[in-house]
Amino acid sequence: MNRYEHGGFVYDAAGRQTDWLDFSANINPLGLPSTVRAELFKALDGITHYPDPGARALKAAIARRYSLDVENIAVFNGAAEFFYVYFNQLEPKKIFIPSPTFSEYERAARAAGLEINFSAPVENVIVCNPNNPDGRLRSVEEIISSTAATVIVDESFMDFVGDEHSVKKFVGRRDGLIVVQSLTKIFAIPGLRLGFAVADRDVIDRLERSKDVWNVNYLAQIAGVAALDDQDYLKRTRRWIEVERRYVFERLKSIDGIKVFDPSANFILLRFETEEEARAVVEGLRSKKILVRACDNFRGLDGRYVRAAIRLRAENELLIESMKGLI
Amino acid sequence: MNRYEHGGFVYDAAGRQTDWLDFSANINPLGLPSTVRAELFKALDGITHYPDPGARALKAAIARRYSLDVENIAVFNGAAEFFYVYFNQLEPKKIFIPSPTFSEYERAARAAGLEINFSAPVENVIVCNPNNPDGRLRSVEEIISSTAATVIVDESFMDFVGDEHSVKKFVGRRDGLIVVQSLTKIFAIPGLRLGFAVADRDVIDRLERSKDVWNVNYLAQIAGVAALDDQDYLKRTRRWIEVERRYVFERLKSIDGIKVFDPSANFILLRFETEEEARAVVEGLRSKKILVRACDNFRGLDGRYVRAAIRLRAENELLIESMKGLI
Repeated sequence: MNRYEHGGFVYDAAGRQTDWLDFSANINPLGLPSTVRAELFKALDGITHYPDPGARALKAAIARRYSLDVENIAVFNGAAEFFYVYFNQLEPKKIFIPSPTFSEYERAARAAGLEINFSAPVENVIVCNPNNPDGRLRSVEEIISSTAATVIVDESFMDFVGDEHSVKKFVGRRDGLIVVQSLTKIFAIPGLRLGFAVADRDVIDRLERSKDVWNVNYLAQIAGVAALDDQDYLKRTRRWIEVERRYVFERLKSIDGIKVFDPSANFILLRFETEEEARAVVEGLRSKKILVRACDNFRGLDGRYVRAAIRLRAENELLIESMKGLI
Repeated sequence: MNRYEHGGFVYDAAGRQTDWLDFSANINPLGLPSTVRAELFKALDGITHYPDPGARALKAAIARRYSLDVENIAVFNGAAEFFYVYFNQLEPKKIFIPSPTFSEYERAARAAGLEINFSAPVENVIVCNPNNPDGRLRSVEEIISSTAATVIVDESFMDFVGDEHSVKKFVGRRDGLIVVQSLTKIFAIPGLRLGFAVADRDVIDRLERSKDVWNVNYLAQIAGVAALDDQDYLKRTRRWIEVERRYVFERLKSIDGIKVFDPSANFILLRFETEEEARAVVEGLRSKKILVRACDNFRGLDGRYVRAAIRLRAENELLIESMKGLI
């Protein structure tokens, strides 16, 4: 696996989507919210116009959902774009990236020529909370009390956990705090690309100047507004994940020969006894058209580690039973 | 008008699209190709997956259409994204931007901290060909023989002119040549965002490392493939523009008090005798729900200049007759 490759690769050699049961990307298995789907079909012909460069309806919806001020919000073509834009302007050009974590931080930091420290905090720190791929959840206190000048917190999986663990409300109260969040996992729209950052106004102003004004496409803006206002979808997601996370954890724990990391979000990290065994499971599942995420290309992990998204009950059962048959 | 504001703003105060007859953005008035529309409706549910990070089907379609090698192609979230990504890695950090031209070059150059020369060529040069907003078309020879080390050519309106004026075929033969092109104007999909760059492999490799791998969303990739393979749509576009460009030019030229710049692409630049008159026309049209592009925020132009897209015959007639009534 390429150093910076990700899960969610469901394409054939010609680049067409094919039919996998995908546990390799951490996408909400409740699927596209019906409200979003309806709005997208209605809006489709609007793509003959440019997106709103101010993304005003979208920013207003984000502000409503997370109790923020629109002036503290910038929107991005997926959370990933934020890192490539922001790291170019980060000062001093040093960052602490703990391991293991989402590899785009490192890739974007290298693109911007940052000096990366993987072992100890420097002036700028990035934290994925809850962390991908191990699900580790840090407390609000731990994050807020960091001594780093700039703390970037990636809360892309926070909606699967609970608003009380988010540090968004501390932006403006704790200097140098920036929160970034993808909206594509929780609303099952990774193909559309949508994310946002919450920061002090001067940081937002610099971010706005450093990207083109149409970076969030028209359909992503439409989808974001519909999704963020769909409180029923969020409630159903929370009900599902609270039950299913525990269930999958207990079921996997009962299998001999797998160490299971306690999940806080919508995915679960496993460690097999040997790299060979992990590989056999990943390949065995693949032959049944089931994708999981081999974690050998995560810095700090090795070929024994595998990550799986938590999906719907029947799908989870199929994964667990298939795994058992392969061990 | 804000220094870097653009045309195509068809939104109300809440950020909703409203019903303008829009001559302010240079979008193909034949509208969304029916092949693209059909593919998008079919593909919509695929947004629950990430886009193909290699954009293989899209790159193959671009390569087919413009007789290029896929290894010389990088794809972008609109051509605008290219400038923000590429200028961060441009060396030396100096660029010549002729005036007047598309203002995103200057905005992106400032974001990347480049030193901008507006009057004479330096090591790096950017040329919009045909040029926005005056429609000036430079010859292939003039561009290829530039003495600058790096020549960036924006051919976003070239499909409205003809392939024989493109310098894409010189990439790999003329060192330091980079061609960037938007696909959103010719295929009427600015809301989806889609562009590409053609360059030597080392430049493409650096571009790929400097942006996230999912920058072109799934629907833009689907639309791009369908549109580029739709040769009938391109033929119909060429038939329309060749006739209509001449017609609009002659009709406008016959109006006293307007200087009309000879158009080469799908838009036309006008100069009124006074700023007051230009403003009265722009505002008068606006009151009839017709948008044109006031050009007072183009460096090198002033409030006398107005740009209008060339649209379908009946729409052009409405614009011209409305203008006549306002002068």
